[in-house]
Amino acid sequence: MFPRPVPQPYTLVLRNAAQVLTLAGGPTDRPLTGPDMASWRIIEQGYVACHGDRLAAVGPMHELDESLITPETTVLDASGQVLMPGLVECHTHLVFGGNRADEFQRKLQGESYLDILASGGGILSTVRKTRAASFDELLANALHHLDGFRRYGVTTLEAKTGYGLDADTELRLLQVAHEAGRRQLTQLVHTFLGAHVPGPEYKGRPADYLDLLAREVLPAVQGLAEFVDIFCEEGAFSVDDSRRYLQQARDMGFQLKIHAEQLHDLGGCHMAAELGATSVDHCDYLTPAGAAQVAAAGQGRTVAVLLPLVPLYLRQEKYAPGRQFIDAGLPVALSTDFNPGSCPSKNLWLAVSVACLKMGLTPLEALAAVTLNAAWALNRQQTIGSLEPGKRADVLVLSVPDYREIPYWLGENPVAQVVIGGQLV
Amino acid sequence: MFPRPVPQPYTLVLRNAAQVLTLAGGPTDRPLTGPDMASWRIIEQGYVACHGDRLAAVGPMHELDESLITPETTVLDASGQVLMPGLVECHTHLVFGGNRADEFQRKLQGESYLDILASGGGILSTVRKTRAASFDELLANALHHLDGFRRYGVTTLEAKTGYGLDADTELRLLQVAHEAGRRQLTQLVHTFLGAHVPGPEYKGRPADYLDLLAREVLPAVQGLAEFVDIFCEEGAFSVDDSRRYLQQARDMGFQLKIHAEQLHDLGGCHMAAELGATSVDHCDYLTPAGAAQVAAAGQGRTVAVLLPLVPLYLRQEKYAPGRQFIDAGLPVALSTDFNPGSCPSKNLWLAVSVACLKMGLTPLEALAAVTLNAAWALNRQQTIGSLEPGKRADVLVLSVPDYREIPYWLGENPVAQVVIGGQLV
Ligand SMILES: [Zn+2]
Ligand SMILES: [Zn+2]
Repeated sequence: MFPRPVPQPYTLVLRNAAQVLTLAGGPTDRPLTGPDMASWRIIEQGYVACHGDRLAAVGPMHELDESLITPETTVLDASGQVLMPGLVECHTHLVFGGNRADEFQRKLQGESYLDILASGGGILSTVRKTRAASFDELLANALHHLDGFRRYGVTTLEAKTGYGLDADTELRLLQVAHEAGRRQLTQLVHTFLGAHVPGPEYKGRPADYLDLLAREVLPAVQGLAEFVDIFCEEGAFSVDDSRRYLQQARDMGFQLKIHAEQLHDLGGCHMAAELGATSVDHCDYLTPAGAAQVAAAGQGRTVAVLLPLVPLYLRQEKYAPGRQFIDAGLPVALSTDFNPGSCPSKNLWLAVSVACLKMGLTPLEALAAVTLNAAWALNRQQTIGSLEPGKRADVLVLSVPDYREIPYWLGENPVAQVVIGGQLV
Repeated sequence: MFPRPVPQPYTLVLRNAAQVLTLAGGPTDRPLTGPDMASWRIIEQGYVACHGDRLAAVGPMHELDESLITPETTVLDASGQVLMPGLVECHTHLVFGGNRADEFQRKLQGESYLDILASGGGILSTVRKTRAASFDELLANALHHLDGFRRYGVTTLEAKTGYGLDADTELRLLQVAHEAGRRQLTQLVHTFLGAHVPGPEYKGRPADYLDLLAREVLPAVQGLAEFVDIFCEEGAFSVDDSRRYLQQARDMGFQLKIHAEQLHDLGGCHMAAELGATSVDHCDYLTPAGAAQVAAAGQGRTVAVLLPLVPLYLRQEKYAPGRQFIDAGLPVALSTDFNPGSCPSKNLWLAVSVACLKMGLTPLEALAAVTLNAAWALNRQQTIGSLEPGKRADVLVLSVPDYREIPYWLGENPVAQVVIGGQLV
């Protein structure tokens, strides 16, 4: 009795693509891991059609309904090119004052991240510059970096606070990130990382600092951040302190993330997965056996966000064993960890190549890790991360004819065009 | 009695730069090494003025002669930006058929470069595709790659042959490279690398293959290539065979280069320096003591061209000890080694960052290594590689305010504008 809805004309059609990397066809109730990470659907000689800000149809060219192309439709020929979903950058420290180019030389002379941290440099120097910066300066920096990310095809980006370390500045960072999200097209996801390290006023009293955050800051953050994150590491917060804090955040309705097993195997990933964390990030020191336990504790839904450019930048040779994580059934995503201290890089494609070279991911797995699994790491899997009708029309046109060339051309940006919400940008 | 020449008006002025990296002020009779690599002149708040395709003046803003700016002068404001010489990319295998993205996966599964070579893959698969490609296909590929290099600010580029391995195809590769040089603005320098590996028809008979090259091919190459190069390595050519071949080439008037000490310490660098080679390239297995010997044998003029992206791409942890080379008095240049097998990267800025991180170069040294010392590696030090009046007007405008940010923003392309021969491109 219900009339079949009349199909609406397309507003944008990308046609004749050599390959359409749909990222569709796998399980929809959990992030991809194991063989599923490499068995999603690729359409040869395909098209992607949008209506407004949504994907309307995706398929092989012979199925394209030409009757839905009108004189108002923008039609782009993607011959010899690859189409894929917009990149989901699921772990950045977007908003900060200044930079730490001056520390690069110190690192080259052999000082470690923890050495520099202990001498008042490192993160605390960025905290000083961030506290001293005006809202407009921070906003201009954030917009500059978002421009860079967009040129690499990042259409959704997670932004953490964590360089204020006091109530006022941390809230300001969230406000800057929200304003930056309104000023351009890449969609932002907001994470509160007030628990990056204890604020300088709480040196040696990490538990007191967390109590302050939980009591006075988290209530003000509700509505401004979806996720609460903590850096669980020697010199930052212990597993026990982290557990208590994340439990408090969860009780207030926040979703959870953790920086864990970056420099030591403390068990932070497993603890967070038990609490139902959406993602556990870094994991360089997580073992394959530990990965299986994290997968079980997280009921297959906790995503391990791996950050391969961080060891490269920190001159460490210990990379998360991503290959074994996937074989152990732990879903894997990839990100830059863009930040001024341990990874000043926005080149997520370089992270894809280095994940293949240093973590043993295959090209197909690495592509899933920066799209659909990264969307899961942000709880956005319903709306982004794959090319499927109804999802947001975030699409990249890549200047290569085959997905295997993406990680192969090391350090290159393959993006020829970016579509965000159905708009060419 | 001679009238002082009337200064000519400027055709292009880049003004108000936060820093002008002149690369000038050091010795002019030899490439930079030791402390000289980091003590060249930086002008704060400076300008660069061009007349036609030449640099006319470089200095601090207060010395800019405004009377030479006419209504016809193009004036660019470089506030908050860095000016530097165009990049000199001194080691590429520019012209080849196809690519080897399919081998990326094999490498990830643990096969070594030499394993793949031994199984008929690797370089010989590129030789098959190159021989099968038409002149126009090879030209289109070369122009595509030159576009990419130009976006990174490469204004001079060395192009080697070496994927033909027979007389006809090797000569065709030189003709393709010459035609590519005429079709766009980046200036090419031509190297004959027929001695890349023995041609497939000469398997197991490397000396016979070199005799063929010396007897039948080198005479035809005169006038088409300035340099003759050879791959001195296990599986390619021995030190003794390489010495005899390079001597023959030198006697015919060619300048010399060598691929040596990439995978083993065979002594090829020292042998080539004794013959007066302009550069010795790779050097990953050259020891600091060996570097001092190479510096002495080459009388301080032989440049070690280091290729940091190659070990990264080949998943090897052995990088040339560039820091010790410089301390030992060996001049160092940097390059991508762009080629389809062991480094499919055109991102010379990434090579700069990785040279800092993995070889211990400082930012100032690494910048000298991709400009003035790279010009020495091509015997072009008289005309390019620094910002000095009379040199070719190849200038980059970088979107950073301080040279220290160049290697810091890992994987990024800092180039905002490129000037080649006085023309904005
Ligand atoms: Zn982080
Ligand atoms: Zn080479």
